Amino acid sequence: MSTPAPLPRVVIVGCGFGGIEAARTLAGTPVDITLIDRTNHHLFQPLLYQVATAGLTSPSISGPIRHILRRQIRNGQLTVLLGQVVGIDAGARCIALADGERVPYDHLIVASGATHSYFGHDEWAAHAPGLKTLADALHIRQRLLYAFELAEREAQDAAARESWLTFAVVGAGPTGVEMAGTLAEIAHHTLHEEYRRIDSRRARVVLLEGAPRVLGAFPETLSQRAREQLDALGVEVRTGAQVTHIDDQGVRFRRGKDEPEETLRARTVIWAAGVAASPLGRELQRATDCALDRAGRVVVEPDLTVAGHPEIHVVGDLAAAKSHAPGREPTPVPGVSPGAKQMGRHAAANIRRRLRSQATRPFHYVDYGSLATIGRRSAVATVQVPLLGQLRFSGLFAWLFWLFVHVYFLIGFRNRLIVLADWAWAYFTFERHARVVPEPLATMPHARQEHTWAEPVEPEHASKRA
Amino acid sequence: MSTPAPLPRVVIVGCGFGGIEAARTLAGTPVDITLIDRTNHHLFQPLLYQVATAGLTSPSISGPIRHILRRQIRNGQLTVLLGQVVGIDAGARCIALADGERVPYDHLIVASGATHSYFGHDEWAAHAPGLKTLADALHIRQRLLYAFELAEREAQDAAARESWLTFAVVGAGPTGVEMAGTLAEIAHHTLHEEYRRIDSRRARVVLLEGAPRVLGAFPETLSQRAREQLDALGVEVRTGAQVTHIDDQGVRFRRGKDEPEETLRARTVIWAAGVAASPLGRELQRATDCALDRAGRVVVEPDLTVAGHPEIHVVGDLAAAKSHAPGREPTPVPGVSPGAKQMGRHAAANIRRRLRSQATRPFHYVDYGSLATIGRRSAVATVQVPLLGQLRFSGLFAWLFWLFVHVYFLIGFRNRLIVLADWAWAYFTFERHARVVPEPLATMPHARQEHTWAEPVEPEHASKRA
Repeated sequence: MSTPAPLPRVVIVGCGFGGIEAARTLAGTPVDITLIDRTNHHLFQPLLYQVATAGLTSPSISGPIRHILRRQIRNGQLTVLLGQVVGIDAGARCIALADGERVPYDHLIVASGATHSYFGHDEWAAHAPGLKTLADALHIRQRLLYAFELAEREAQDAAARESWLTFAVVGAGPTGVEMAGTLAEIAHHTLHEEYRRIDSRRARVVLLEGAPRVLGAFPETLSQRAREQLDALGVEVRTGAQVTHIDDQGVRFRRGKDEPEETLRARTVIWAAGVAASPLGRELQRATDCALDRAGRVVVEPDLTVAGHPEIHVVGDLAAAKSHAPGREPTPVPGVSPGAKQMGRHAAANIRRRLRSQATRPFHYVDYGSLATIGRRSAVATVQVPLLGQLRFSGLFAWLFWLFVHVYFLIGFRNRLIVLADWAWAYFTFERHARVVPEPLATMPHARQEHTWAEPVEPEHASKRA
Repeated sequence: MSTPAPLPRVVIVGCGFGGIEAARTLAGTPVDITLIDRTNHHLFQPLLYQVATAGLTSPSISGPIRHILRRQIRNGQLTVLLGQVVGIDAGARCIALADGERVPYDHLIVASGATHSYFGHDEWAAHAPGLKTLADALHIRQRLLYAFELAEREAQDAAARESWLTFAVVGAGPTGVEMAGTLAEIAHHTLHEEYRRIDSRRARVVLLEGAPRVLGAFPETLSQRAREQLDALGVEVRTGAQVTHIDDQGVRFRRGKDEPEETLRARTVIWAAGVAASPLGRELQRATDCALDRAGRVVVEPDLTVAGHPEIHVVGDLAAAKSHAPGREPTPVPGVSPGAKQMGRHAAANIRRRLRSQATRPFHYVDYGSLATIGRRSAVATVQVPLLGQLRFSGLFAWLFWLFVHVYFLIGFRNRLIVLADWAWAYFTFERHARVVPEPLATMPHARQEHTWAEPVEPEHASKRA
């Protein structure tokens, strides 16, 4: 008996939509896959704002990577490693993890996604958290819920109370619109009559957008519909607003070059504006001399590989990719989950072609449409229908469609069941069942206040008898 | 028209079993209640180990205080404040919060519970987290799940791999026994075949107990049953084991004075041994000169008030209380949830008596029995039956009884439904659905490892071109 030849090694970095789709597509292909992620779960990011707004729990919209891919692990094809990739050695064809382990590859798929970008103002990050990971969502949940609590604590100072009851959301893309709409619902319905000193319905939700309209990626008529729905929910929309400053007291912005700067006193600011590629883009540039675009994304070849390195594929939000439809000019692929999934699938298929010594194919993005919801019973949708072109709709039907699509694409039968049940419960009761913050108040640094009374009572730890 | 006389002010500190029961008992009584807690939720502590072991989510075993008590808030009787009590002024009859707010009272109920005690070795806390709060449970969940991940990462070093696959639980009371049993199930069933480099079934779970038997508060026959069940699950039980040292590499212990010290290499140690009263006990001593017992609990009068201060009541784990059954010697009240609930109810009833100028009554604890579960289909139970005395049982029937009691006492119809559904799912699939850790590996300080390779690849942030 002779030892069989070792299988080609495929390493996938990142287990978002792109990474997991690549791993699944390679099931059955004679390769040895290693999947590396910094966390132990795959996350359904489109519903992350519902975890942040206490409507869903973290496990409902995520799943352990090992559980999702258990069949490929059991049949010996796939290894999952929890680790942080810190280096790529394109010459030696291996990647390095933070603890020094090196993982060699024959084919590499980098799918490490994107993070927040504060347009050069990283100091805003502490005051205006963004929403990309489960940890982000739980942090925002704490900020939102404790803001109402801290408003209730402000017995004396009306201005301080108001600034705790003012919520600014920066950026009116789908995430910003969904956050603002849900926040308005929470203030007006869920928390109504649960406080004595404040009226939660007097909370202000202000949505700031630099462009002239909300949901800029949607057709103008749907932006208008979304705007009307936000108005109906009581969200104050400020378009054409350029944010100039954020600190723990609020936001300053300008609506036009010659306009005066406006100040919004808001103790809670949510960042839903800028997206930057994962820092692995810079590492890829160092390792392969590839080009990056302004957002730090890797400019890839038509087949999603890095120039000069047909064994390195970049997919998802890290890739500045173009769609190559036959007979048309290449167009940029939008940074949405169907794009990442299609790229992951395409990179895996190209690896299979290379294993069979076939030429790789250029990536062609199929746009099925876009969806965004704005509170209960309202959404906007575009759907691309072959031959008919783009259908646009809004209102209750768009909302039901949104609901169906999101439940359908969730991974796991159990998650689908739970999310449907949670939504039904929330719809009829107006309650948001995940309104529990594990951490005590002391973990919210910007909420710490000094003793303001003339005669402070001796704190417990200063007790001499203790 | 004349202004009505202001209502007597009742302040309740802590929203555990004692605090929430006191607040509910006072519904309908003409008092103005203020309830203060450091978090926004009431927690069903008996099921906390299931959150730590990823079987249940946090919102399933807890509820927002405002939602639980919403009727009393709406009818204007109750104010809920999120805050940390740092001082008690027994002369001026007010308490002070960390931010300087003072809350005056006519009647005070202190129900701030207990925390971990490391028997004078506070340096062990960092290495052996205890289980009292939701934040504790989520921290332990991360440690447990990432230990298996880090074992998988130890490709080279068999000893290091084994120490990540060894779990020590210190203390074999109900929480320690439940943790150890569940951990063994996770290793042998849930995670089985989800790893490539390790066999999760080879994980060791070691339960260390200083006393001669597990579940020392139960009758000896039931301890024996529990021990047999732990053996069957593969848990290694070490009774008579005095822990002498804990660090990030493991535990040292001695089984008898003249025995040699044994070392257990375990990267994950869970503390389920010591309990100390909340630091508010010391503050009460400073403020009122009351006596504390060895565990820092407040020694209370028969009616649960502090000596010399009939307006200050102490209930739950903070109280060193005695049960005064008619015609019998007073006996200590055990630190269990029915004890806290009965004390909360009793303090509230005594406040009502004082408002009617009636004498207060001594507290009488009614013992309904004890329960502990050890993995699926197994539990031990004692039930006090009037006239018949104590019934003891174990096995499947005890487990079904345990299950019924825990679901029955959960607060909220929705929580009961969810927990039952989660248990049914887990029972049939062996899956634990909350196996998701929001935080990446980098948040686990004791897991950080240095670069161990001869030629480390340049880390991304050192890149010059970036």
